[in-house]
Formats: sequence, C-alpha cells, structure tokens
Amino acid sequence: MDRPFVYINSATSIDGKLSSVERRQVRISCQEDQERVRGLRADSDAIMVGIGTVLADDPHLRIKSEELRNKRVDRGLPENPFRVVVDSRARTPADAKVLGDGCILVVSGAAPSRRLEKLSERCEIVTLGAVRVDLSELLCTLHKKGVRRLMVEGGATLNFALVEAGLVDEISVYVGPLIIGGERAPTLVDGAGFREGYPRLDLVSIERIGEGALFRWRFRS
Amino acid sequence: MDRPFVYINSATSIDGKLSSVERRQVRISCQEDQERVRGLRADSDAIMVGIGTVLADDPHLRIKSEELRNKRVDRGLPENPFRVVVDSRARTPADAKVLGDGCILVVSGAAPSRRLEKLSERCEIVTLGAVRVDLSELLCTLHKKGVRRLMVEGGATLNFALVEAGLVDEISVYVGPLIIGGERAPTLVDGAGFREGYPRLDLVSIERIGEGALFRWRFRS
Repeated sequence: MDRPFVYINSATSIDGKLSSVERRQVRISCQEDQERVRGLRADSDAIMVGIGTVLADDPHLRIKSEELRNKRVDRGLPENPFRVVVDSRARTPADAKVLGDGCILVVSGAAPSRRLEKLSERCEIVTLGAVRVDLSELLCTLHKKGVRRLMVEGGATLNFALVEAGLVDEISVYVGPLIIGGERAPTLVDGAGFREGYPRLDLVSIERIGEGALFRWRFRS
Repeated sequence: MDRPFVYINSATSIDGKLSSVERRQVRISCQEDQERVRGLRADSDAIMVGIGTVLADDPHLRIKSEELRNKRVDRGLPENPFRVVVDSRARTPADAKVLGDGCILVVSGAAPSRRLEKLSERCEIVTLGAVRVDLSELLCTLHKKGVRRLMVEGGATLNFALVEAGLVDEISVYVGPLIIGGERAPTLVDGAGFREGYPRLDLVSIERIGEGALFRWRFRS
C-alpha cells in the first residue's frame, strides 16, 4: 500500500507531558524551535491532528507566514497544506478554526449524519471504517490526493493509534525545560499502551535548542 | 533547614513512561547506563523509593558489586547506602527485599500499629506527618543521620511530591529508544500535577549513551 512519509512532531515537558492535567496548553517550546516547526509545516503536504487536539486547543493549522506561503506557491504547491482531522464521531465544533477550504474531516460510519450534514458545508468529509477511522486506509486516501509528507501534530491518542498500526516513520520531540506532572496529563503517546513488543526506534540526532533539546527518532522497519 | 543534596535518577521511554500500563518493568536502559547508575548509587549516602515502587518492582537497593562496596568501605562508609522507603500507611510487605539492616521505613501517623510491629523486626521505623509522610522533615532527619547525598529512584508519585515540595536539586533521565504508551502508564512525574507555576530547570548536559540519551537537569533556585 502506498502511503505518505509520516512524522509526528511534538513538544513535551521533561516528564513527557503535552499539556497539564486540565489539558491547558503550556508553553513548552522556545522561539527557535517554533521557527523550526513552522518550517516543517510549510514542507508538509498535509498536517493531521486528532479530535482531542481540536477540542482542547482549537488550532487553525494554517501557515501564518506570508513568506512561507509564497515559497510554497513558487514551488507549485497550494498556499497551505491540507488540514486533516481524525474525528470518528464527527465531534468537531461547527466553528472550529481548522474548518474551511483545504480541511478534510475524516469520520467513521458511526458519525451521526446530522452532524455531517452541518460540517460538510465547511470541509470535505471522508468516511473510513465502521466505528473508528481506519488509519491505514486514510493514509492510502491521502496518498492518492498527492500527499507525500504528512505531519502529525498529536494528540496523544492519535499518536498511539498511528504507532500501534505501524504507520509512523519518524518522531521529533522537543523536550522543554520544565515539569508539568500529573497522572492524568496527556503524554506524547497514550491510548491503551503496549504490553509487549514495545516499538523500538533509532536516535537520528539530538541537539540543544534554546533551553531544551530536540530529539529525532526513526522507527525501525 | 539542612537537608541532603537530592537527585532523582530515572530511565524513561521516548514518551516519558517508567513502565507499562500494567506497571510491568520494561528494559529501557542499556548496559553502559546501568553502570553509570551503579556508580551513582555507590556515591550516595542513601537511596530512596516510594511504596509504589516497592510493591511493583520489589527492589533490593543494595550495591551488588563487591568492588564498589569495598571502595565505599575504604572511604570510611558503610558497605551500602541507607535504603529509605516512603510508605505513609506501612504497606511494605514483610518479605520485601528492601527490608533488613540499613533500611529505614518512613511512615505517617496513619500507619496501622499492627503492621509497624511486624515490620519493626526488619527495619528502622521513622514516623513523620499525620496522614502523609512529611518529606521536608524526612530530609532533615536524614541529614542528621549523616546523609549528604540522597538518590531518589522513583516512582512517579514520590517524584511529584518531592518536586512539589521544592526538595529536588537535580534530575537525570536516561531516555531509551522505545515507546511504551498508555494513558495510565506511570511517567517520570505523576501525582496531581502542576496547574500553573511549572517548575523550570536548566539543562546541564545531554549525552548519547548506547542507543538513547542521558539528560541532566538542575532545578532553578
């Protein structure tokens, strides 16, 4: 099956958390790292998040910098990468910032048709899987749409589902100089967790950036 | 208040986990890092863990290497550092490996006296705090016993309690090349978590060891 190159990009605290127990966004990253992330986004054909991230953070997932948008256009690309939301039950609010032209909402057969009717005015809707989105099919669909580099920006549940399905090539993690703590705070990879056969990765590089450090890990094939 | 220099040493997966959702020990560290940890233990005056770690892993917390023990004796130290268990309700099993000469069980006023009677045959018991062990008092007590360097080997709940109380100087984390995942898997720092005023640290050093990397962080004072 042809699928895009898939990379998760994330920032965590020293203790592996993405945000606080209240799922409140915490400033983990530094300016220098944020620039790196903006570059990564502009180099992607699509940016994907899970519904949990949409509900918690309401991200817009577009390229803010006019310069970066122009560079994409010069390369023959659309101004913005596709914005893909994995949302099995179509819980995305009708006023979510991610919606609009270029947004693909990926739902399952379990999504209420009433919700879909409303949301379809503001995005493309793709239905894959009976109760949960079939991620493998999704990547195949995205590949057919020309997506070769897919950036995943979380959250913890989508990250786990992708890793569990063996669909991730790389993970970049910026570890920021703080502790968030909390048994129930979301971490880089949550979900049900592995009980054996823990996926192993190779450390590609490690680099001090600002007051933290950036890890790049590649999945062993 | 005089207290020892306190350092947490830990190994986590890329996603910040200490063990699996079933609290099953996972081999995160490599041989080279384990040697480093053995050296750290031998350089400590006491090694401390929480009751969760005793119940999950049953560690013995003694210096295995005869060479390292002899070096301690040559320096005028006891063969092994004190072994300190923070166990507010005295849940340590009577056959726990940590018990024996040199073990200090630290309980609160809420510990059932029947349990204490039994356990007191196999360790020194120190009672501090009404319902939960008063960690600040504990460090003061350990200092009076001559402890100048205290190594904390987890788990997640004790780490949080110490960080929350502002009683930690350094954290070393070996990040191993694997993903454990799981919403409920223990992480480096759990407990209730911080909601604001996240403790900030300085990155002292970062070093590739084996297939992972070792971070050393120092708390800002």
